[in-house]
This record gives sequence, C-alpha cells and structure tokens, in this order.
Amino acid sequence: MIIPQPALERLCRMRILLEELKEKQITVDSQELAGLCGSSPDTVRKDIGYLKNFRGGKQGYVCSELSDCIKTTFNLAKRRKACVVGLGKLGSAILEYPGFFPAGYELAAGFDSDINLVELKKSGVPLFASYEISEKVRQLGIELGILAVPFEAAQKSFDRLAEGGIKGVLNFSSAILKMAGNIYVRNISFLHEFDIISALSAGIEI
Amino acid sequence: MIIPQPALERLCRMRILLEELKEKQITVDSQELAGLCGSSPDTVRKDIGYLKNFRGGKQGYVCSELSDCIKTTFNLAKRRKACVVGLGKLGSAILEYPGFFPAGYELAAGFDSDINLVELKKSGVPLFASYEISEKVRQLGIELGILAVPFEAAQKSFDRLAEGGIKGVLNFSSAILKMAGNIYVRNISFLHEFDIISALSAGIEI
Repeated sequence: MIIPQPALERLCRMRILLEELKEKQITVDSQELAGLCGSSPDTVRKDIGYLKNFRGGKQGYVCSELSDCIKTTFNLAKRRKACVVGLGKLGSAILEYPGFFPAGYELAAGFDSDINLVELKKSGVPLFASYEISEKVRQLGIELGILAVPFEAAQKSFDRLAEGGIKGVLNFSSAILKMAGNIYVRNISFLHEFDIISALSAGIEI
Repeated sequence: MIIPQPALERLCRMRILLEELKEKQITVDSQELAGLCGSSPDTVRKDIGYLKNFRGGKQGYVCSELSDCIKTTFNLAKRRKACVVGLGKLGSAILEYPGFFPAGYELAAGFDSDINLVELKKSGVPLFASYEISEKVRQLGIELGILAVPFEAAQKSFDRLAEGGIKGVLNFSSAILKMAGNIYVRNISFLHEFDIISALSAGIEI
C-alpha cells in the first residue's frame, strides 16, 4: 500500500490512543478522535479512508475494530523483537519500561560496551557486550534497535546493528544518523527538542 | 525574526552538533556540516543565511562562532529553568540526566503525585507534590516542563503547568497535547516512533 508519511504517522498515533480509549468506551466519532489527536474531523476521516475495508457505523467507529484495522494494515499485529544499545540512565529506563510488551514489542537484548556492567547489572532482559551486537541481532531475529549511547558511539553502534540485519533504529543520541539501505531511522534528541521550544517560546516567529 | 520551522529545527540541531565538533576541530565547511546533519550543503548554506551578521571564511565556518551565533539568534544563551513532572522510571532518568546544564538548562524541580515518593526519593533536584506545580513553577520562574506521566494524568499536569505560566512543554506521555495560548508543545511517544518504524520497515510505501 502507498500512503503519505504524515497520514501514516497520524494513524499510528491514533492506534495508541484507541488502545487507551477502548478500555473506557465502545465507539468514538471523528469529532472526538480529532480532539484527542489534535487534528480536524476531516483529516481523521481522510486518514481512516486509507484503511481498505474499514467503515464506520452511525455511532461512529468501534474503537477496538479501528485499532485492529490499523494494526493489520501496517503489519503491527506481529510481535517484533527490539534491543537497547547503551545502558546508562536513559538506556536502563527504556530497558525497564513496561509498555513495550502490551504494545506488541519484546525487548530481547540490551548491549553496553562496559563488560563489567553487562555482567553485574540485574535485568529481566538478557544483556550482552557491544561487540556481540551483530551476532545477537541476527541470532535472536531482532528487528528494531534503540540507541541510547553517547554521540561518539552512535555511528559505530548503528553499523553493528546494520551488520546484524536490523530493520529500524530509534536514535536518542545527539548524532544525526541517516537511513542506510532499507534501515529506517528516527532521530530524537531531548536537548534539540528543548532548544526548539526555547526558541519558539522566546518569540521567534515561524 | 521570522524563519520557517524546518530551518529553525535544523539550526537548533546544528548547534548541538557544533558543540561536540568544536572540541575536535576549529572550522567546518558546509559539505562536512551537511554530512553530519543529514542534509545538503545548499540547505546548510541557506539555513545559515537566516543568521544575520554571520559570514563564513575561506576555511569554512568557525565552529564556536557559528554555535554562538545560533545561540544568540534564538535566545538560547540565557540559562532556562526546567522541571520534570512524573518521577517514574523515565522521569527519574531525565531527572539525573547530566546533559541539561552544559546545554544551558537548569532542572529546578521534580513533581510527582505520590507524596511518599517525593519525600523519600534522593535527588540533587528539589522535589515537590504535583498539587504544588502551579505555585512552584511561578515561584521558581520555571519556563520549560517535561511531562513523563501516564496518559490519564497528562492533561491535568499540563493544565497545572499552564496555570503556573510555563512557556513550553515536552510531552512524553501517549496523550497528544495541543498548544494552548502561547505555550509551545512537542509530543514525543516511544511507542509511536516504534510503530512508524515498524510500518515503514514492513514495506509500507510513503
């Protein structure tokens, strides 16, 4: 299927909201969805229009059905294995984040260049040294990598994930990584976001 | 000054890279900057063109000068106070993140609805109960808030920050918060990013 990236992003976000919503109510209309998603009812309807074979009823959309349809359309129904590279404070917090499993992900490995830390650290997730990244990613069938390493270690870590056949990377280091081959990369930096907010709130007009 | 948001975002990102770069080298040209930023030399030159009174020399740009110019232009030179709301695993990791101070931010408070946790938790940052958010934000002159609370608590926490006069919010909850008044909001969700990568790496075309 072919879909514009902003619509894909909005539908993915809508699915996460629907998972919360379905605990509280059976159906939702485009007006309410628009309010929750921060977009317009028109955009909501147009986005949902990309989902083949999905129709709302008079009461609006059934939350669980809409969520399932987004899941199936974007191949999110299959549980995917992920790993964390870099087990400092941020990496450790991600390692213990309980939200991955309910959302369809399994944290299958954690990596750090500090071998002592890897041996001593207690975690429900198997931990390995960074030089084992490629081997373990391949062996365990890990598809997604989260980079929580310092700037200097980002490219090297990424290359190791790539060598192991990773499919996508979420990068929290301040380095900007580029897509390589078929590997999708999302760069997220706390400080970057802070700076943008600061600039905008200081009266820079856009 | 008026600048397109993508250019503002790229320049903010460039500044963070320049801070790393200036430790290793004096100058940088648009070609190398483009490589590091994941854009083109043309875009780099165009973005830098928005900075009034800044000129590169024959050797390219002086890293520290370019970084300082971005800082001044976007009012990033002034140290800004920030706070974290929600002291679970993610919030605690953010609380201990050592990168804020060198980047020009000061974490001035942490908040949680669990009063026992706030009393017992050890931190270099002063901790308070969530009902004190508005009061403390105003009293301490906090400009930026980081939300690391569950979905259900997001809007309430945001409203309290807004009441205290916050200028910008970085939201890590899965709720989507909208700009209110002059408060700039950036929504970031781990699971959302994961889903987008999954969809893209599963062969969805955009």
